[in-house]
Amino acid sequence: MIKGNDPILLTPGPLTTSLETKQAMLRDWGSWDESFNAITTSICKDVVEVVNGKGSHVCVPLQGSGTFAVEAALANLVPRDGKVLVPNNGAYCARIAKILKYLGREHSVIDLGEDRQSTAAIVEGAIKMDPRITHVAQVHCETGTGILNPLPEIAAACARQGKGLIVDAMSSFGAVDIDVSKHPIDAVVGASGKCIEGAPGMGFVIARKEILEGSQGNSHSLAMDLHDQWTYMQKTTQWRFTPPTHVVAAFRSALDQFKAEGGTAARGARYRRNCDTLIEGMTALGLRTFLPRAVQAPVIVTFHAPGDPAYEFKSFYEKVRARGYILYPGKLTRVETFRVGCIGAIDFNEMRNVASAVAETLKEMGIKQVSPAKAAVTA
Amino acid sequence: MIKGNDPILLTPGPLTTSLETKQAMLRDWGSWDESFNAITTSICKDVVEVVNGKGSHVCVPLQGSGTFAVEAALANLVPRDGKVLVPNNGAYCARIAKILKYLGREHSVIDLGEDRQSTAAIVEGAIKMDPRITHVAQVHCETGTGILNPLPEIAAACARQGKGLIVDAMSSFGAVDIDVSKHPIDAVVGASGKCIEGAPGMGFVIARKEILEGSQGNSHSLAMDLHDQWTYMQKTTQWRFTPPTHVVAAFRSALDQFKAEGGTAARGARYRRNCDTLIEGMTALGLRTFLPRAVQAPVIVTFHAPGDPAYEFKSFYEKVRARGYILYPGKLTRVETFRVGCIGAIDFNEMRNVASAVAETLKEMGIKQVSPAKAAVTA
Repeated sequence: MIKGNDPILLTPGPLTTSLETKQAMLRDWGSWDESFNAITTSICKDVVEVVNGKGSHVCVPLQGSGTFAVEAALANLVPRDGKVLVPNNGAYCARIAKILKYLGREHSVIDLGEDRQSTAAIVEGAIKMDPRITHVAQVHCETGTGILNPLPEIAAACARQGKGLIVDAMSSFGAVDIDVSKHPIDAVVGASGKCIEGAPGMGFVIARKEILEGSQGNSHSLAMDLHDQWTYMQKTTQWRFTPPTHVVAAFRSALDQFKAEGGTAARGARYRRNCDTLIEGMTALGLRTFLPRAVQAPVIVTFHAPGDPAYEFKSFYEKVRARGYILYPGKLTRVETFRVGCIGAIDFNEMRNVASAVAETLKEMGIKQVSPAKAAVTA
Repeated sequence: MIKGNDPILLTPGPLTTSLETKQAMLRDWGSWDESFNAITTSICKDVVEVVNGKGSHVCVPLQGSGTFAVEAALANLVPRDGKVLVPNNGAYCARIAKILKYLGREHSVIDLGEDRQSTAAIVEGAIKMDPRITHVAQVHCETGTGILNPLPEIAAACARQGKGLIVDAMSSFGAVDIDVSKHPIDAVVGASGKCIEGAPGMGFVIARKEILEGSQGNSHSLAMDLHDQWTYMQKTTQWRFTPPTHVVAAFRSALDQFKAEGGTAARGARYRRNCDTLIEGMTALGLRTFLPRAVQAPVIVTFHAPGDPAYEFKSFYEKVRARGYILYPGKLTRVETFRVGCIGAIDFNEMRNVASAVAETLKEMGIKQVSPAKAAVTA
């Protein structure tokens, strides 16, 4: 890689953004100025439309990473005496349970294992067994492995049981269809630096309006009080506290590009092709995916590490990086894996190239057994 | 103003940054990558050195606006059974009290009025009257008016009384000297988009190491858990949750420029000259400052609104904006004011120019009585 050329990020956010998006950060905006407030307003309008929530839902943007927005959604939208069911198939589900512990909100966790989807039957069964459950907190695409949870059927189950549903759509928003008009959802949580392909630094909660309106007093935190943020924004069109102005402007640009590309359908199709090309290329080298194809979201793919004793992630990472691609470590504790993202301002050509870079790296490292150790696969 | 030319922000953050700082955002960084982690590490080292805290203090960066970092500092560093004294001379002091209410931390507020400094005598007197007080939360420069509170003597008073001191140095950090080796302070809180002249989107808490180490379990929030953030960062050099990578890179560039300029002394001198030039120019027009000169920080100046009935802030703001300068509204409830920031990548020439722009605007608006209404000044 030539010095000064940036490697492509095959990571699930931050990701590689377009030059146009980054160039939107070359201006300073006044956080009190009408021209900036118009950007905030238009962003809120657009992200609500991404999930078809016009009329029923409103968007509350929040400073910080996606996790800040997830915590804010749980703290604000689950009443203090509520109980939350958390179907757990990965690190981000576990993080929700951790947040609920901090918040002192009662919750119960269903441990599914990391390769098993959450389903309507599982969720509905758990709700029936515990009448104290008031809400389900569901991760849509669990970035820990890349597994996609079937949101429409889970939303239907929650609706049947009269329970609230809060969706962590961090890595699916803009890539996998979410339609709150068809599938009842209380809140969808996303962030700027994921599949809309903006810069990281702000999250947003798309909440059902009447639930948000009734949430005053729930928040544990001033900074994360969504009701207060929203009320203030309604009145002034401004953020309560200094917004990340450059990140907001970049997100506006990224949303324009998202719409020009054709929205979730087109972006999802590009990512799906990226994902297919990646799996094809890597499988041809002898690598194996952790997840069965049927449950794989087109966002990030977990591969088993090669079974060869010459394999070591750090060195593998660095050698692939030197060839222009930044991979992501695995997030599984039981088996050794690594992850490759399919999202960002990239297309299937990059996926072909990274497979070539991996092939060369494996050769350079003297790795003969590319397929995983038997124990890993049956673990 | 020619279309496409951005107005200069005379606001207390976001502010006008240098092109170099903004250009640092033209790259995408992997949040797991060593090159990015080295930036985070170096930022933490540098901001600790700005307050001369090497050896005694450590820096914990936090996603979000400065208020997020203030809330995190209070939540983490004041034990749950602590009691906080808040000397109140403005909006940001009041915000601290509001945060403490959310956190359920006992506190008492001394209402000083907005034109009166907090002093060692006031703080020490209040501490002596209430033995339950464990901490003082002091805003250094109160951006609501621009008043500077005398931190060294307040720190000495807290030390004499054996009380903790948490300083909201949001708008003073890098502009007004803070030396934790001479003046005992538990925590100094700052943010990227203020006097270091970076882009907004991250805050930081510079905390006394042993206090941070003893703070496990205090936090009300996972996202704002400074102990957890710091412990993880020590272990991995990474942020726990997605950092605002572009903002972090811009902050690195801004810190480089801050050091090259000559640190706090040089930057403070530039801002002081900006402030002096501004007050001189505006006073010559007949405008009057809200604060006496002796307590004015070189950060933001509050001016009384003209007493003429033809004055109206919105129109005044827009006309000055059309001439290239973005002002800030007043934050006082009792008297009508407006504010002009002296900070950012600007020099005294801009201060001359804004005074000219204000002169032309007042003329255009047909304002004859530039001096404030008598009632306002004696209010």
